[in-house]
Amino acid sequence: MKKKRRIYHQNIPLQEAIQRWSLLLNTLPPSGEEEVRVDSSLGRITSRPVSALLSSPFYHSAAMDGYAVRFTDTFGASERSPVRLKIGRDAMGVNTGEPLPDGFNAVIMIEDVYEREGEIVIHSPVPPYHHVRTVGEDIVQTELILPENHRIRPVDIGAMLAGGLTTVFVRKRPRFTIIPTGTEIIKPGQRIDRGRIIDSNSYMLGALLLQWGAEYRRMDVVPDDQERLTEVILSALEESDALAVIAGTSAGTRDFTPHILGEIGEVLVHGVSIKPGRPVILASVRGKPVIGVPGYPVSAYITFDIFGRMLVDHLLCQSGQREEVIRGRLSRPVSSPIGQEEFLRVKVGKVRDRYIVTPVGRGAGALMTLQRADGIVRIPEGIELLEANSPVDVHLMKDRYEIEGTVVCIGSHDNTLDLLANQLRKRFPQFSLSSSHVGSMGAMSAIRRGEAHMGGTHLLDEATGEYNIPFIKRILEDRAIVLMNLVYRQQGLIVQAGNPKGISSIEDLTRDDILFINRQRGSGTRLLLDKILKEQGISPHHIAGFDREEYTHMGVASQVASGSADVGMGIMNAAIALGLEFIPVAEERYDLLIDRESMNLPQVEAVFEIISDDGEFRGLVQSLGGYDTRDMGKIFYEHGR
Amino acid sequence: MKKKRRIYHQNIPLQEAIQRWSLLLNTLPPSGEEEVRVDSSLGRITSRPVSALLSSPFYHSAAMDGYAVRFTDTFGASERSPVRLKIGRDAMGVNTGEPLPDGFNAVIMIEDVYEREGEIVIHSPVPPYHHVRTVGEDIVQTELILPENHRIRPVDIGAMLAGGLTTVFVRKRPRFTIIPTGTEIIKPGQRIDRGRIIDSNSYMLGALLLQWGAEYRRMDVVPDDQERLTEVILSALEESDALAVIAGTSAGTRDFTPHILGEIGEVLVHGVSIKPGRPVILASVRGKPVIGVPGYPVSAYITFDIFGRMLVDHLLCQSGQREEVIRGRLSRPVSSPIGQEEFLRVKVGKVRDRYIVTPVGRGAGALMTLQRADGIVRIPEGIELLEANSPVDVHLMKDRYEIEGTVVCIGSHDNTLDLLANQLRKRFPQFSLSSSHVGSMGAMSAIRRGEAHMGGTHLLDEATGEYNIPFIKRILEDRAIVLMNLVYRQQGLIVQAGNPKGISSIEDLTRDDILFINRQRGSGTRLLLDKILKEQGISPHHIAGFDREEYTHMGVASQVASGSADVGMGIMNAAIALGLEFIPVAEERYDLLIDRESMNLPQVEAVFEIISDDGEFRGLVQSLGGYDTRDMGKIFYEHGR
Repeated sequence: MKKKRRIYHQNIPLQEAIQRWSLLLNTLPPSGEEEVRVDSSLGRITSRPVSALLSSPFYHSAAMDGYAVRFTDTFGASERSPVRLKIGRDAMGVNTGEPLPDGFNAVIMIEDVYEREGEIVIHSPVPPYHHVRTVGEDIVQTELILPENHRIRPVDIGAMLAGGLTTVFVRKRPRFTIIPTGTEIIKPGQRIDRGRIIDSNSYMLGALLLQWGAEYRRMDVVPDDQERLTEVILSALEESDALAVIAGTSAGTRDFTPHILGEIGEVLVHGVSIKPGRPVILASVRGKPVIGVPGYPVSAYITFDIFGRMLVDHLLCQSGQREEVIRGRLSRPVSSPIGQEEFLRVKVGKVRDRYIVTPVGRGAGALMTLQRADGIVRIPEGIELLEANSPVDVHLMKDRYEIEGTVVCIGSHDNTLDLLANQLRKRFPQFSLSSSHVGSMGAMSAIRRGEAHMGGTHLLDEATGEYNIPFIKRILEDRAIVLMNLVYRQQGLIVQAGNPKGISSIEDLTRDDILFINRQRGSGTRLLLDKILKEQGISPHHIAGFDREEYTHMGVASQVASGSADVGMGIMNAAIALGLEFIPVAEERYDLLIDRESMNLPQVEAVFEIISDDGEFRGLVQSLGGYDTRDMGKIFYEHGR
Repeated sequence: MKKKRRIYHQNIPLQEAIQRWSLLLNTLPPSGEEEVRVDSSLGRITSRPVSALLSSPFYHSAAMDGYAVRFTDTFGASERSPVRLKIGRDAMGVNTGEPLPDGFNAVIMIEDVYEREGEIVIHSPVPPYHHVRTVGEDIVQTELILPENHRIRPVDIGAMLAGGLTTVFVRKRPRFTIIPTGTEIIKPGQRIDRGRIIDSNSYMLGALLLQWGAEYRRMDVVPDDQERLTEVILSALEESDALAVIAGTSAGTRDFTPHILGEIGEVLVHGVSIKPGRPVILASVRGKPVIGVPGYPVSAYITFDIFGRMLVDHLLCQSGQREEVIRGRLSRPVSSPIGQEEFLRVKVGKVRDRYIVTPVGRGAGALMTLQRADGIVRIPEGIELLEANSPVDVHLMKDRYEIEGTVVCIGSHDNTLDLLANQLRKRFPQFSLSSSHVGSMGAMSAIRRGEAHMGGTHLLDEATGEYNIPFIKRILEDRAIVLMNLVYRQQGLIVQAGNPKGISSIEDLTRDDILFINRQRGSGTRLLLDKILKEQGISPHHIAGFDREEYTHMGVASQVASGSADVGMGIMNAAIALGLEFIPVAEERYDLLIDRESMNLPQVEAVFEIISDDGEFRGLVQSLGGYDTRDMGKIFYEHGR
């Protein structure tokens, strides 16, 4: 079979795609209505205005514990000439909430009467309906309780029931069908082989639909078979308000979706100038909306979050914006492709009362970058470069209070930080630790610029053999900081299980049959390697793969495990985690550099508490292997106020 | 039976109550765990850290459409000496996402090669693993995907599935039992008689529990029978993690709950110095937490939102704060009882870039004031008076964007405003109209102080007989405003059906057998009445009930309907709505006074659109009865920029 290759035929701006989609949506009526019980209407959307059937209270009742009286009987009462009312005839005991006996029209509080010989004695007149909850005081019959298109909350349920309603008309949940496609796609739980990809998208999009108030049904994976896919789409359409067809949207050989949708319906948009998410398809088939969702998970999420949400919101008559938007400042310059609106995943931290926004990885396939992101910054088409410190608007993916309770940790990566993050969350659910891996020098810069609360660092000074302190004195002279030890750890060479290439020392890195994977410049591990190479007189030019950089120990270990590198430098624990072999080279000290101004934040204090005296944490670190906790929590250095 | 009356034995500060409650909660382990499918884990809380079982990608794959090559084959390629690779042997066609054939380790993009005679021609070398998604690029096996105590989002579901997980351990939903009590309480849908109250609380609290991630079972209403209630509590405890017993918590004759809880367990707190919500009970029975929730709906909501939420959060290891808090300014002075922390219900509007905070009604029974509130301001115990313009923190009950899309309408009440609110929401789901009823003079002041976008007004100038304009000229001289007509309406006397007391004119108000209900000072209706009384030489002192004030037409009608008044002054439509009789007195003009600076807000423009040319809205107003729309949308006056 001859491979056909297509290039995108459209690359239209997001605004125009949204406009075309809106034109289609505006031809669709809102989702139909159904009558549900009020007590199971939480989160549903009203399809009609809701008015009270009854007044509440339904009758005049006592607002206080005391005696019901006729206000006219109390006229003329004073200290000098008190009025006496016979209990049981002119004054009836009532508790709060009880109906007023017939003919009675005011209540005197129990605290204000003097009881004597079957009578109450009062010293001042009471006005009509004093301390009485009159009919309709809360809800008047016919009063509007909820407008149309209102999302029902617990308090609305209370109000509707109190207003005499037992059922309420709500919009039906829009019914979606999600169709995952691709011969290589398998269901979660099926055996995975080389060449196979687990279908995570259809469940992720399904969960988004649930969150928006729609419901979905998921079809089995349809292989790359044009006829079969056409059939499935057509039959699914009959029972759905809308479809999402996942993958097959791009321009590869087996990407049938745009072709099929063009045959059986009308493709409104194929290819939007956004990054990621460009290959998205928006179509109308038999009058129903169909979204062709790109297969890369981040593209899938971002395009569905735009077009899928618009669709659900339209059907439920809801407005689009739900996530909070905050304004922060970029911690580093960001270049962005011109001609594409970029959806940049970012971390957000609140440090020294500013929101610091740091971009994370950008690959369309890198779901974890989205999962770890705190929000998304949209960079318009026309912008090529945003300078560091530029103000940006972040569409949050978390609640703001979560971000404000986060310890921002920027610097070198170590697996104990993951452990620390989990322990923090476990013991202090209101806090979390977010760590960005930019190497030890990155920690120094982040603290200097006031962009982090703390950071991991293991910088070995070539001249003195001392860790971190010489760098701090040079770089952070005018910053108040504390340097606290976290662990000592083994650094060494990570090689494949069984060490098939017989690597035994740093010198082996220069061998012709060895492909190396390096850590990025500025990382402590890189500095350590550079120092060793220098000491041993080895030129980096003789090491194949020296320019390939990974940002974490696990990244290095993963490259070795997969065979895309024979050896890398990293910590022992990373080798253990992936079942690799480890050749020790040096023990090094791994410290936390801490911004002194941030030390009194409750989330930072919680971290100290765990480091200083949490036996469980210490035990967990030791059980990782390759760590020594002898100085954990010890302060090696500090300066500034 | 002798009535026993108790006074609260405690009135402890909220902070201390919270502390005592925490002490109990800290003795309870977190909710147990259960294993659920990842695809049905949305919104659940992880009970263990979640790590990847597989790397993703699971194999090296092409990151681009193109040809897979061996990077060593490309060494030395240049423009002058291109390298040719035989397709099918040294260069294999690959689509994005496909695995690299064995032995191949780089991809050249389709756009970068020149195909000729079964070969590809390349002009520059490619580095190792160029355009290759290497194993673990997204997720590395063993990597922490989610920490413990994390609420699962759609993107987390995607990441877990991609990381090879099909199930996840989550905390069980805490099981609550809700027990409504009280002989007078009936289930929704049961026939309501005088003296009966519909149980709305148990469903409202249940909905709160669902929202927090717990589940609940609701018992049938238990009558006021100490023995019976004791049995129900004890048996419910066996199958629940916690109980909420509603009502019977205060100090009335039939309030058994504190007594029972004291007998079978320990009462930690009875009576907290908060308003509303004072009678709340916190107890421990057989080691399980029991909340005695006050019966007044607002008290029930506020106390459960504090103590019930703490409990669920503790069991699910979540942190408490979820709602957004914004800082606004009070539109009027607020006095607050000293010695009690008040939970003040407020409306919030964004006018001229400031959040304006206006208190609404305060009764513990007034559920609608809570339902209509945008948020809650907490006034600490020691504060007796907050001046107008004081900064206050509002705990929002709505999303901030909803508040920012709200038209703030402060002034005179008319039923067409409810209709307008619903029509706005129907046609523009992103907007809403919030109206506060403070009378026509209130509209003038609100516009003058920049606290409203618009307000209804029908102020008749005694001297000129002209509506509104003379007042605007006097009060709003230096404000830019527009005055637009909404409707003309009939004002008159509202009397009981069949007019049993034979009321026919204003003069009848002075009769001895007639009890009047008035509107508040500053309302247009009150001004109209005052003018008529003056013209007819009638002294208000001769009218019984002249000092009883209601704030809305429906409030007046409701008092008449219930028999607590014989007659009131109001609009025809209010009489029609409650099946009352109406004696016309005058037609009056009801206008909207609009802040000119707010006229370009999209939500205000949407209101204009409805008023100016929405036939449906006009039709609905006419069908209410008592209205004339001949000048609807007409601008009678404007001044300022």
